[in-house]
Amino acid sequence: MVESIIFSKNKLKILNQLKLPLQVEYEDINNVTDAWNAIHSMKVRGAPAIAILAVLSVAVELNDRQLISPFNDNKELLLSRLRDQCTYLCTSRPTAVNIDKECKQLVQLALKLSTDSNVSFEAMVNQLTEYSVNLLQIDINTNKAIGDFGAKHIKSLANKESVTILTHCNTGSLATAGYGTALGVIRSLHLTNSLTHAYCTETRPYNQGSRLTAWELLTDKIPSTLICDNMVAALFKNKTVDAVVVGADRVVANGDTANKIGTYQIAVLAKYHSVPFFVASPLSTIDMSKQSGNEIPIEERPADEIKKIGGIQITAADIKCWNPSFDVTPNELITGIITELGVFAPNELKTKIN
Amino acid sequence: MVESIIFSKNKLKILNQLKLPLQVEYEDINNVTDAWNAIHSMKVRGAPAIAILAVLSVAVELNDRQLISPFNDNKELLLSRLRDQCTYLCTSRPTAVNIDKECKQLVQLALKLSTDSNVSFEAMVNQLTEYSVNLLQIDINTNKAIGDFGAKHIKSLANKESVTILTHCNTGSLATAGYGTALGVIRSLHLTNSLTHAYCTETRPYNQGSRLTAWELLTDKIPSTLICDNMVAALFKNKTVDAVVVGADRVVANGDTANKIGTYQIAVLAKYHSVPFFVASPLSTIDMSKQSGNEIPIEERPADEIKKIGGIQITAADIKCWNPSFDVTPNELITGIITELGVFAPNELKTKIN
Repeated sequence: MVESIIFSKNKLKILNQLKLPLQVEYEDINNVTDAWNAIHSMKVRGAPAIAILAVLSVAVELNDRQLISPFNDNKELLLSRLRDQCTYLCTSRPTAVNIDKECKQLVQLALKLSTDSNVSFEAMVNQLTEYSVNLLQIDINTNKAIGDFGAKHIKSLANKESVTILTHCNTGSLATAGYGTALGVIRSLHLTNSLTHAYCTETRPYNQGSRLTAWELLTDKIPSTLICDNMVAALFKNKTVDAVVVGADRVVANGDTANKIGTYQIAVLAKYHSVPFFVASPLSTIDMSKQSGNEIPIEERPADEIKKIGGIQITAADIKCWNPSFDVTPNELITGIITELGVFAPNELKTKIN
Repeated sequence: MVESIIFSKNKLKILNQLKLPLQVEYEDINNVTDAWNAIHSMKVRGAPAIAILAVLSVAVELNDRQLISPFNDNKELLLSRLRDQCTYLCTSRPTAVNIDKECKQLVQLALKLSTDSNVSFEAMVNQLTEYSVNLLQIDINTNKAIGDFGAKHIKSLANKESVTILTHCNTGSLATAGYGTALGVIRSLHLTNSLTHAYCTETRPYNQGSRLTAWELLTDKIPSTLICDNMVAALFKNKTVDAVVVGADRVVANGDTANKIGTYQIAVLAKYHSVPFFVASPLSTIDMSKQSGNEIPIEERPADEIKKIGGIQITAADIKCWNPSFDVTPNELITGIITELGVFAPNELKTKIN
């Protein structure tokens, strides 16, 4: 299983997803600014992955003697610095909630450590680092639980020993610390000989599906086929698809879900063709502070993402484009939300998650 | 208005649409084989355009002294040769009906002329040539009628002076002899100051929308915006769209319509969002010999069309793809079929067209 984020001996590296699948190149992340740039330019993407990268980049600065020296032995100054770093990191991309939540938790831990007179400056640094590094393993465990709950639920609903799944965008090892969310469900099905076939969409304009998901599925020898985003209805009509499973950038209290552009229309098409539609989401992606999808900020990205591929112009230069990066799928189109605690109907979130 | 097919002084030229919009290059079509290759490789595409090109390539051979000399003064041999040419041309692409119909009509005319003892060999050649060349002007007139009927109908249905349209694929000057079918409706709206905005989809994997339609709209200064195929539902939800208008490769007796892949799902999404969905189709695209969409052959094209753009690999080389080039939109999702005789509900075709 490929690793998108590696933290070892206080060195942080990322797999540059802009170069995949043609080149597999790791890059150093030496500080918070490097992380912000990597997230903003989408060298690393995926709601869980960008949150973990953000927090780990703070850990890198904590362990860099030169960067940390101005704060030596001043826990309050360190806390203030860490707050600034987290505020800055949260401006890198607006739609996913995970980065906000993980940064907030890191700041809370730093606050607690800074006010605890039994904790030395060095101990504070060590505990913050340990906390950050643990996020990688916690995310993998979370994803395995999501995968197993989802696989079991979908097989049971379809009443089949083996099922065919459609997924959108990339929610695999590359989008998380490893294993994946929606792709984790596909992985769990495959590992238990319960996967007939996986279909993935290209996911224009950024091609996370064709560049990343198709590559992950091929690399892991999972039987799979790539389709274009406009072939989903034809797929439902002409082939057997037992369920759609997608990831999420933010699930809010009523179950409305922001995810990669194109998710909403797949949900509409799934409803029309009576295909169950699932969102695979760790609890860290659920934002109970927002009541409905209308409150989720939707990032719009540059037109050049549509007009160029790999830096090469594919359209007339002067055309106008509309390029929303995400859309919101309303709760009524969602069959279930697969979390590390189990599968919930959208209207169960308020009572079951808190 | 750009010309995709030019016939002048017995010389036939096509605009190579594979190179658009970055290069505007015309190529000679010297014989029927050149035409077959140009259609098969999609240098020229669009149901009306490929039919006209096929018939004109026969005219080119008729007027080539070297090619015609073996048949001199033998009308029966010429008829037989023309039949073979037409049979061959119809194998270039299977889904559009126009090429079959236009070739059949050419053969019927040749049969009539060959058995008429008052018609000389030379007169037969001249009449067949004249018939072929006239198709260009007839198609433009047809498209203008479609455009005007469609524009009037959509404005009336929306009860607005100015409307916003979404279209898919390319149905403009490039796909026809000129003016366009669905794009003809947009053109007629624009010419009467009744167009607020036109949206067009990329139309993966061949990008007829981003390469051709967006370029035609820009060239003709029609206010327009390109979106990806997976943004259609988000567009319907976030912007005002008064109608969808698409072209057709084959409309059958019950109104089921084969058109570029992605059309079917736009129709489902339009229904869900209560946006009227129109098919702009000349009578030459209506095939009353088939009763339902299930009888329409659907072309599947090579995986490399998805895996490469402009010859450049954009995915891992070994992934599998499914690449149907067309899909069928069932009649119940179609608000109206816009023809050169007026706008009809799908269930009116059997009584109103024949």
